Amino acid sequence: MKKTLIIKNATISTPVGHSARKGEEMAALHTISEGAIIAEDGIITYAGPMADMPETPQCSECEIIDAEGRAVLPGFVDSHTHLIFGGYRPDEFEWRLKGDSYMSIMERGGGIQSTVNATRTESVDSLVEKARRFLHRMVAMGVTTVEAKSGYGLDTTTELKMLEAINRLANDPQSGLRIVATFLGAHAVPKEYKGRTGEYVDMMIAEMLPAVKGKAKFCDIFTEKNVFEIEDSRRFLLAAREAGFELKLHADEIVTLGGAELAAELGAVSADHLLHVSDKGIADMARAGVVATLLPLTAFTLKEPYAPARKFIDNGAAVALATDLNPGSCFSGSIPLTIALACIYMGMSIEETITALTLNGAAALGLADITGSIEPGKQADIIILNYPNYRMLPYYVGMNCVRTVISRGSVVAQND
Amino acid sequence: MKKTLIIKNATISTPVGHSARKGEEMAALHTISEGAIIAEDGIITYAGPMADMPETPQCSECEIIDAEGRAVLPGFVDSHTHLIFGGYRPDEFEWRLKGDSYMSIMERGGGIQSTVNATRTESVDSLVEKARRFLHRMVAMGVTTVEAKSGYGLDTTTELKMLEAINRLANDPQSGLRIVATFLGAHAVPKEYKGRTGEYVDMMIAEMLPAVKGKAKFCDIFTEKNVFEIEDSRRFLLAAREAGFELKLHADEIVTLGGAELAAELGAVSADHLLHVSDKGIADMARAGVVATLLPLTAFTLKEPYAPARKFIDNGAAVALATDLNPGSCFSGSIPLTIALACIYMGMSIEETITALTLNGAAALGLADITGSIEPGKQADIIILNYPNYRMLPYYVGMNCVRTVISRGSVVAQND
Repeated sequence: MKKTLIIKNATISTPVGHSARKGEEMAALHTISEGAIIAEDGIITYAGPMADMPETPQCSECEIIDAEGRAVLPGFVDSHTHLIFGGYRPDEFEWRLKGDSYMSIMERGGGIQSTVNATRTESVDSLVEKARRFLHRMVAMGVTTVEAKSGYGLDTTTELKMLEAINRLANDPQSGLRIVATFLGAHAVPKEYKGRTGEYVDMMIAEMLPAVKGKAKFCDIFTEKNVFEIEDSRRFLLAAREAGFELKLHADEIVTLGGAELAAELGAVSADHLLHVSDKGIADMARAGVVATLLPLTAFTLKEPYAPARKFIDNGAAVALATDLNPGSCFSGSIPLTIALACIYMGMSIEETITALTLNGAAALGLADITGSIEPGKQADIIILNYPNYRMLPYYVGMNCVRTVISRGSVVAQND
Repeated sequence: MKKTLIIKNATISTPVGHSARKGEEMAALHTISEGAIIAEDGIITYAGPMADMPETPQCSECEIIDAEGRAVLPGFVDSHTHLIFGGYRPDEFEWRLKGDSYMSIMERGGGIQSTVNATRTESVDSLVEKARRFLHRMVAMGVTTVEAKSGYGLDTTTELKMLEAINRLANDPQSGLRIVATFLGAHAVPKEYKGRTGEYVDMMIAEMLPAVKGKAKFCDIFTEKNVFEIEDSRRFLLAAREAGFELKLHADEIVTLGGAELAAELGAVSADHLLHVSDKGIADMARAGVVATLLPLTAFTLKEPYAPARKFIDNGAAVALATDLNPGSCFSGSIPLTIALACIYMGMSIEETITALTLNGAAALGLADITGSIEPGKQADIIILNYPNYRMLPYYVGMNCVRTVISRGSVVAQND
């Protein structure tokens, strides 16, 4: 007997496909009113009109949810987070509001290094417990897949500790969502290697990549002026690709450096941030099929201009949206605010925003074949909103519209 | 025997006083580490160091909360909301994002009038039920006092219906918070009086004010070009004052019209919005002691410049912050986002922001003698954060930091 979930009276809206939706495809949601979804053992077996629904299969564990006409969407994918970290940095947040720049705070030993210090001394158990509280909040906002990066260790021991925390959460059925690990040893040059970036890259290639192999799907790097510039980034990412990792880049966040072009050259799965991407970078990414993962909460928090979402879409690229949850430049994780910023400040339509937060987020994690849309054969990662109209998502500014969250066929959150 | 609440191990921070804090006073929070609070029958009888706490009084119902060092603040006051309304306007939100202005949508029968039509046909029960869901969310964000306006009736029957809904909620112990009613018949000129603003004002004075007397503490008006201009506003507010109402104004929101100056002239308790206030308006309000109630969520939603909070404070005025929850220009209600906008985009410090959301909000409702701070003699409206440091409030961008909410001595919300 199979475990069966049936959702009835659903107003289903979903992107369709097994890869990122690009350009104008992003606005094309497939909508089924008076719809139904059947999932067996966590896999969608039917998504269509209630009228055409097959006979309810025999089931021992059968859960039936009446959506009462409410909007039903794929679960959200938060494809860029720094979920695991020691400490908090509220004081630095205040300094920044008084006018200090992110780079100047970093240069005087604040920024990433201060979280590195805190993370190095924290236990795996403690990191896991802290992350669990964030995951709990994410699930309540409709997130059913989350990416989590290492990168606050910057030594092999601590990077391994962070990946252990991520994988422990990923394998814990209590987490309620799918977690994808990314190795980000190249998040910053640690103080031990100050002025010796090349040697740190050598060490990562020789020591870290072999050590973390099999513990992370992706390898990511902070490609930025005065951090890892283009040549070091290329050398490191080529080694990572050779070692079997799929690639991501923090690209063109603070200055226009060519990170987007490098992502395209190397066939990265995504390039992220992109506030200062060049037109050539956009064209290269569109052509190479690199997902542009935009992180509006970070721009909002840093009072930076938003990434050019419209330019990406209008040039045929695929855009994903994610939160960038981290203790420095963007301590947030608010999906509702991400949606508000995308629609109000980045010129994205709500349909494009939904695609960016579902199927394109899944594609940015190489998971578009198993999640990100409501289609037979995909895993049943589904959210039910409080309202029949998904247009409530940007309209109810900064507030959570999600009522029920289903992850792989099981209800994992129910908001009142 | 008295009902007693004791909060131990509290890191208390609170503005102090029984009136609005002005200018640089706004930044002065009184902090007590290792503090304790005692409330008897909902009134604070002690707030000071644990070491000096008096003997625990005899009590039959005694609740003891160990704050475990967490930050403890006065409950938030949301002193400007349009809590009661029929329908929603997500489509209009989309039009606006495509470039239509608020005034142009209003001129072609959208805007307030569309909510008026929906509110006129909705039952009191239905309005109350809908508002209850908003109140539930507000309480979870730490709001212990909320103002609610009529103004979607624009006829006597519906204005009375809205005030009945507000007062029913205000008198319902289930609501969990204090609700203050404001009559806003002068929210717009209804379609029945199109082109006859003066006659609508005459009717409000002759018919509405006597009808709603005793059902609302405040009388408010939307003083704006092409709505109620200065002369009509003055005439209406003088009549309202004569009828015993305290005064509020929606002032200088869309253009610089002199609403702030009028508020000062008439001794209004607050003037609200103020995005386009003149320097003279700021000086007049500071001198007259009119609270400047700023509504950053509305500016954020409409992509307007934020109100000049710094200018108000630096010129010795008292600033309050509120959400402006309404179905048109600002369907939100997010206290966390209000805090983020104040600190990141309006140049307010977190201490000023806390004062604006507590004591100054209370002052904007004429309630500074009974709530808005943690002091003996005031009602026990108190929130406990998840963190020991109140600086987490703006830093955790757009996310709710509130753990426990106490209204008049009783726990009314507990977030996990």
